[in-house]
Amino acid sequence: MGFHEQLSRSWAASNSLLCVGLDPDPARFPKALDIGHDAVFRFCKEIVDATADLVCAFKPQIAYFASQREEASLERLCQYIVETYPDVTLILDAKRGDIGSTAEQYAREAFGRYGAHAVTVNPYLGGDSVVPFFAHGGGVIALCRTSNPGGNDLQSLDCGGKPLYIRVAEMVANDWSQHGDCGLVVGATYPDELRAVRQVVGDLPILVPGIGAQGGEPRAAVSAGATTEGRGLMISSSRAIIYASSDADFAEAARDAAISARLATLPPGW
Amino acid sequence: MGFHEQLSRSWAASNSLLCVGLDPDPARFPKALDIGHDAVFRFCKEIVDATADLVCAFKPQIAYFASQREEASLERLCQYIVETYPDVTLILDAKRGDIGSTAEQYAREAFGRYGAHAVTVNPYLGGDSVVPFFAHGGGVIALCRTSNPGGNDLQSLDCGGKPLYIRVAEMVANDWSQHGDCGLVVGATYPDELRAVRQVVGDLPILVPGIGAQGGEPRAAVSAGATTEGRGLMISSSRAIIYASSDADFAEAARDAAISARLATLPPGW
Repeated sequence: MGFHEQLSRSWAASNSLLCVGLDPDPARFPKALDIGHDAVFRFCKEIVDATADLVCAFKPQIAYFASQREEASLERLCQYIVETYPDVTLILDAKRGDIGSTAEQYAREAFGRYGAHAVTVNPYLGGDSVVPFFAHGGGVIALCRTSNPGGNDLQSLDCGGKPLYIRVAEMVANDWSQHGDCGLVVGATYPDELRAVRQVVGDLPILVPGIGAQGGEPRAAVSAGATTEGRGLMISSSRAIIYASSDADFAEAARDAAISARLATLPPGW
Repeated sequence: MGFHEQLSRSWAASNSLLCVGLDPDPARFPKALDIGHDAVFRFCKEIVDATADLVCAFKPQIAYFASQREEASLERLCQYIVETYPDVTLILDAKRGDIGSTAEQYAREAFGRYGAHAVTVNPYLGGDSVVPFFAHGGGVIALCRTSNPGGNDLQSLDCGGKPLYIRVAEMVANDWSQHGDCGLVVGATYPDELRAVRQVVGDLPILVPGIGAQGGEPRAAVSAGATTEGRGLMISSSRAIIYASSDADFAEAARDAAISARLATLPPGW
């Protein structure tokens, strides 16, 4: 099953546009968790089990695993998610981008090693940098308008009457999509830009980080970015959900936060 | 010692602008290598030992390790290079790029876990995406004009009278360099663009991939990109050196190829 088909199944099964980001930072782990023993996997698994029925997607951020030598935990976590919750879409947040021969290695990492349905990529290297991902049958979610302050430095530059991020959206929608299942990343902190991107990319799925800790407003994101069918979005929250409590009730608190975030991102009519 | 100081030391010790890229692909390993036992590390170590006196830098490409679950080998390789060849600069080719809190994790990976002197980064997320790297004392080498065919898709877009890659060069030279030791990536396949970037960035080091397998001409790169002192470049070759032979003499053949590549990239007067 390709990325788009998987994601359609996830939206239908969950009635949710919420994506929970898995950014395991031991400095923020609940005190009740025994840090010494397999803490990264166990923390993420508890969050996953507590929220899986509320989300269309999980999005592990590979940097948090790589900085801690926890790739093996990420492998187990991804396998656990895919096997236990087949209705949920698994996005590896890795923002890869390299020349074709190297991208082939990253494709093996994302889809072979970790079994993700889609991987986030950086568009700066252009079309041939994503072809290997499609050859492995996975989806590609390109950075378009990111939620951080420095996103303006390049993404808003005027490129022949259009900002660069619109040129990226056009490239993905008109060119890359000919070769495989694509999506885009547009931060919730920029609802006007999200609306502009939606107008360019038709029904392509848009991953929207930036609600919660980064301050984006969920309803504004849904209003600006949902398709006419009320789908098309994966609205991602990480820290506001997974660190909702630093006590023994962290999984329960994550569930409560996910319930609220799901409701806040329900499109009209759902 | 910071990235720039380390690299100056490397140029002085080696009288070489050559950087050898370490892209270990078992499908191309010499038949004589016992693939079953620690092959990735042993292959890279033999290449390193055979070429260390001929290079200013080694550049392991992390994707080749990640696709094979070989992060532990990359750790050992990096440690081996830094301890055995302290005059050589170690660049982690990872092309990272993410929001600040995630970039912090990538900085720990590059400089804590792997001990690199500098890491390649993607500029698309702007200034705050690289600040954490400087906080860890490492250097940042930003993609500017890449050597692949798709590099044109975005990098050559006209941004207010200048191509995007020149805007990136200006951002790195004028802004990012205020915060830490920077460099840029410009492919050898575009000597005119390399000359234009050199004019923008003063003496900042430029990593130049694309000679060898990708077809860039070494002397044209030196002529276009070297500083007036005949330095400023790390001219990188991977496949043409490390796979110079697929027989038992692969390390010797790599040395011969590195000797030729070093000579072909010697600036006038060295």
